[in-house]
Amino acid sequence: MTDEHFMRQALKEARLAEEKGEVPIGAVVVMNGQVIGRGHNQVEMLTDCTAHAEMIALTSAFNYLGAKYLMEATLYVTLEPCVMCAGALYWSKIGRIVYAAPDEKNGYRRVTDGKSPFHPKTKVETGLLGEESLRMVKDFFQKRRK
Amino acid sequence: MTDEHFMRQALKEARLAEEKGEVPIGAVVVMNGQVIGRGHNQVEMLTDCTAHAEMIALTSAFNYLGAKYLMEATLYVTLEPCVMCAGALYWSKIGRIVYAAPDEKNGYRRVTDGKSPFHPKTKVETGLLGEESLRMVKDFFQKRRK
Repeated sequence: MTDEHFMRQALKEARLAEEKGEVPIGAVVVMNGQVIGRGHNQVEMLTDCTAHAEMIALTSAFNYLGAKYLMEATLYVTLEPCVMCAGALYWSKIGRIVYAAPDEKNGYRRVTDGKSPFHPKTKVETGLLGEESLRMVKDFFQKRRK
Repeated sequence: MTDEHFMRQALKEARLAEEKGEVPIGAVVVMNGQVIGRGHNQVEMLTDCTAHAEMIALTSAFNYLGAKYLMEATLYVTLEPCVMCAGALYWSKIGRIVYAAPDEKNGYRRVTDGKSPFHPKTKVETGLLGEESLRMVKDFFQKRRK
């Protein structure tokens, strides 16, 4: 299974969010080639601004494993994590983060000034299917403005 | 009702955490002189490193109000919020944050370099019953080392 395969799973989650009228952001947590947690943005549905795709995917991975650390896992997410989600990922000690597209306005880099908010051993990569992810978000906001 | 009254409510939540073997951190969300959300650290019990006192208190306040913003509310928490919780507080647009004691190691200032991670209108205060809060945390870790 490739990174692209799993990012497509995250995009599929994003589409589920979109269908419910949520900003289309999705995430999956993968360990040993298997999805162990998935989530999509549910902020509006739950009226809870902490219900981000990453938070839901992390909690579902913790539940699946019965463990609170994810050193061997990778998070695939369609947009750069925000400060909250970056803080959650720090606590999880996740091994690797792959995010599709940057979020210049609300991504974690908003406050970190180049300092990594993650665990020192966490690897971070970006760019994979980024255009596809951004297109989905832009389309969503364009439709809403109409 | 004074700030001290509500911080004592947060300390009471911290004590509930301690009784369950959790790091003693507690939080309450207050609006119009009324507690609308409370929470204590449940990371071990839920095996979920996102189950911080503030996150639980915020989600319970959102549920209580059926709203995802807390501009008129104050969060009282016994320890400086971490990066994750600071990010959640940003999204909530909470009016005011009062934290009892600083957390030099894991507080939000770990990555923010003096930049506020909160909403521009959020007021932040600290120091209220700080010694009491820190004593509880120190006692907890001293007991565990024995």
